[in-house]
Amino acid sequence: MKILIAPDSFKESLTALEVADAIETGFKRIFPDADYLKIPMADGGEGTVQSLVDATKGKLFEVEVTAPLGNKVTAFFGISGDGQSAIIEMAAASGLHLVPLEHRDPLKTTSFGTGELIKAALDKGVSKVILGIGGSATNDGGVGMLQALGGRFLNRENQQIAFGGWHLAEIEQIDLGGLDSRLYNVEFEVACDVDNPLCGEKGASAVFGVQKGATKESIVILDNALLHFSQIVEQQCQLNIQDHAGAGAAGGMGGGLLLLPKVRLKSGVKIVIDSLNLAQQVRNADLVITGEGRMDGQSAHGKTPIGVAQTAKMFGKPVIAIVGCLREDYEVVYENGIDAVFPIIRKIADLDETLKCGRENLISTAQNIARLYRLTAH
Amino acid sequence: MKILIAPDSFKESLTALEVADAIETGFKRIFPDADYLKIPMADGGEGTVQSLVDATKGKLFEVEVTAPLGNKVTAFFGISGDGQSAIIEMAAASGLHLVPLEHRDPLKTTSFGTGELIKAALDKGVSKVILGIGGSATNDGGVGMLQALGGRFLNRENQQIAFGGWHLAEIEQIDLGGLDSRLYNVEFEVACDVDNPLCGEKGASAVFGVQKGATKESIVILDNALLHFSQIVEQQCQLNIQDHAGAGAAGGMGGGLLLLPKVRLKSGVKIVIDSLNLAQQVRNADLVITGEGRMDGQSAHGKTPIGVAQTAKMFGKPVIAIVGCLREDYEVVYENGIDAVFPIIRKIADLDETLKCGRENLISTAQNIARLYRLTAH
Repeated sequence: MKILIAPDSFKESLTALEVADAIETGFKRIFPDADYLKIPMADGGEGTVQSLVDATKGKLFEVEVTAPLGNKVTAFFGISGDGQSAIIEMAAASGLHLVPLEHRDPLKTTSFGTGELIKAALDKGVSKVILGIGGSATNDGGVGMLQALGGRFLNRENQQIAFGGWHLAEIEQIDLGGLDSRLYNVEFEVACDVDNPLCGEKGASAVFGVQKGATKESIVILDNALLHFSQIVEQQCQLNIQDHAGAGAAGGMGGGLLLLPKVRLKSGVKIVIDSLNLAQQVRNADLVITGEGRMDGQSAHGKTPIGVAQTAKMFGKPVIAIVGCLREDYEVVYENGIDAVFPIIRKIADLDETLKCGRENLISTAQNIARLYRLTAH
Repeated sequence: MKILIAPDSFKESLTALEVADAIETGFKRIFPDADYLKIPMADGGEGTVQSLVDATKGKLFEVEVTAPLGNKVTAFFGISGDGQSAIIEMAAASGLHLVPLEHRDPLKTTSFGTGELIKAALDKGVSKVILGIGGSATNDGGVGMLQALGGRFLNRENQQIAFGGWHLAEIEQIDLGGLDSRLYNVEFEVACDVDNPLCGEKGASAVFGVQKGATKESIVILDNALLHFSQIVEQQCQLNIQDHAGAGAAGGMGGGLLLLPKVRLKSGVKIVIDSLNLAQQVRNADLVITGEGRMDGQSAHGKTPIGVAQTAKMFGKPVIAIVGCLREDYEVVYENGIDAVFPIIRKIADLDETLKCGRENLISTAQNIARLYRLTAH
C-alpha cells in the first residue's frame, strides 16, 4: 500500500513536515510495511517557505532587510533543494507583525524589504521565484519593492519618492531602466488568492486597509494615490494594472509586481502543487492524507487540503483530511474531493494546552483512522 | 449491511438513546439503506434506568421516598417493557447529590429510601430487580434499606436502631422474619463493579468514606460499626458478609443486600448486556458502534464500551467507539475489543459550549466514520 501524506502546517503548533511525520507515525503503528511519501504542503501563505524547503530538502537563508517603517529586521527566504527556485514570503520582510500595533499606518509603510529579499534570492542564481504576498503591512502598490530592485519613481523635483503609500500621489515619472537585469531571466510565480482590483470599493485600500491600521480618511488618500500610480503606469508603461484581477492584493503589491518582466499571479496552492509535482506523486498512491490547522467553509477557497484533494480526485484516489479543528460550516469540503475529515482534539482544554498536545493528538487520530481503514481494507 | 448501535449515555449531555439516535443520523447520511438496530446501554451507574427503559420501551415511575437525612424526596425507578423487571438506581433515593455539601455525614445517612423504592417496584409485580448501587451518600451497610423492607435491627432496649451508619454498633439482634414475603420470589441482580470487602483498610468506610463526607475519626467509628454488624450477621444468620467481594460497595450496601433471599452481585455492564440479550443482537450485525462520554484507561474496567466490544468480539465483529473525550491513557481499550475510537470534539470551547454541541458533533463524527468506512467497504 502506498500512502501519500500531504498536509499544510497547523499554525502556531506544527510545521507541515511535523504534521506529516506525526500522521506517518500514527499510521505506521497499524501499517508498518506500507510505503509512505510525505510532502509538506502550503497555500502560499505563512509557512510556505518552510514547507517547500522541507519538501525539496532545500535551505533557509537569513538576510537583513528594511522593515515596513524603515528600521532593519532579519528576514528569511528559502532555496529549493535543486537550487533553481527561491521561495519568499513577503510577510517575512514587510509583514504586519513587524509593526507594533500603535504604529500601524499604511500611509507610511514600505514594501522595500521584500525587494531586498528578492535581490538576495537573485544573488543565489535562481531561475524562478515563488512569492507569497499575504500578511503585509503595506499599501504602497509594491513601489518600495520595485525601488529596491532598481526602479525609480520620481516626483516633480525628479527625486525618488519617499517610503509609504501616501507618496505614490507624487509620482510624475517612472523609470524602470535601472531594474536589476537578472529579472529578465527569472520567472516569478506570485501566490495570489484574491481577485481584488487595485482601486475602488473592492480595491486594496478599501478592503484591506483597516486591518493594516488605516483610518477612514487615510483609506481615501491611499485609494487616490494608488489610482494616480496606476494612471502614470498606464501612460508611461502602456500597462493597465488597475483592472488586473489580484492587483489589489497585499496593498497593491499584486499590481506593482506586474511591472516586472516575467510575472504571473496564480493560486498559491496551485503554485505549490505544480512546483512539487504533486499530480505525479498522487498517481501512484492508494490513499492520500491531507490536513490543516482549521477546516471550515472557507477551506474550499484555495486552501491546501482542497488543492490536494482536487489533484487526488483527478486520479480517483481516496482522500482523508486530519485537522486541528473543524468548524460548523465545513461540509462543503465533501463536494471538493475530501472523502472524510477528522479533528484531532480529544478533550476540553484551552488553546495553549491544545496546541501543546498537537503532535500527540495527531498521532492518535492517524492511528485510529488507520485502524478503521484496516477493518475493511483487506 | 446491519449496524448495531449500542452506546452508553454521554453524562450531562445526552441519554444513551439520544447518543444512538445521533450516531444513526450521521451514518444514515452515508448508508441510508443499512439496517440499524439501536440498543441504549449502561453499566449499572447513572443512566442505567433510563437506558434500560428506553431499550425495552418500558416506563418510568416516580415515588416519594426517604432521603439520606430523613427528609422526603421524589425518586424514580423503571419497569421494563415486558413488565417483568424493575430497574432501580440507589442514587435516586439515597444519592450523594441529595445531601447538601455541608450536611454530608455517613454517620447519619440512611439507605431507607432505596428500600422504599424496591418496595414500590415489588408493588408492580416484577419477577426481577436490577439494582445499581453507585453514587450513594450512605455507609449503613444497607440496614436502612432492609428496615424499609421489613427487617428489624434491634438494640439492647429491643428497639429498631435509628438511621445512620453510627447506629449499627448498637445492633444486638437481627430479625428478618418480617421481610416482605415477595422478596422470596424475586431475583435481585445488583450491579457491583468493586470487590472491596465490608471492613478494614480496603473496606467501605476507609475507601469510600471521605467522598461521602466522613472525617478521619468517623471513618474509624463507621468501620467498627460495620464490623460489629457483620459479626452479628455471622452469629445470628450464619452468613459471612465481611469477606464477600463487593460487600463494601455503596457503604456496605453490597453486604446488606446479601441478607435478602435471592441476590447476586454482578458486573453492571454484564447485567445490562444479559438483560438486553446483546449477544443475540450482535451475532447478526456487520458492524458494532458503541461509545461513552469519556474514554480512558479505566474504561477497560467494567465500562459499557468494553462490555459491548467483548460481546462483539465473541462473534468476531468490528467495533468502533465514538466518545465525548479521549484521555491520554486510553490505548488499553484496543486490547479489549475496540478496533478504533474517535472523539467528537471539533473545536476549542469550554465545557458548557462543548456539551451543547454534543448532538451535532456526534452526527458529524458518525458521518465521517461512515464516509471512511465506505471508502473501503465495497
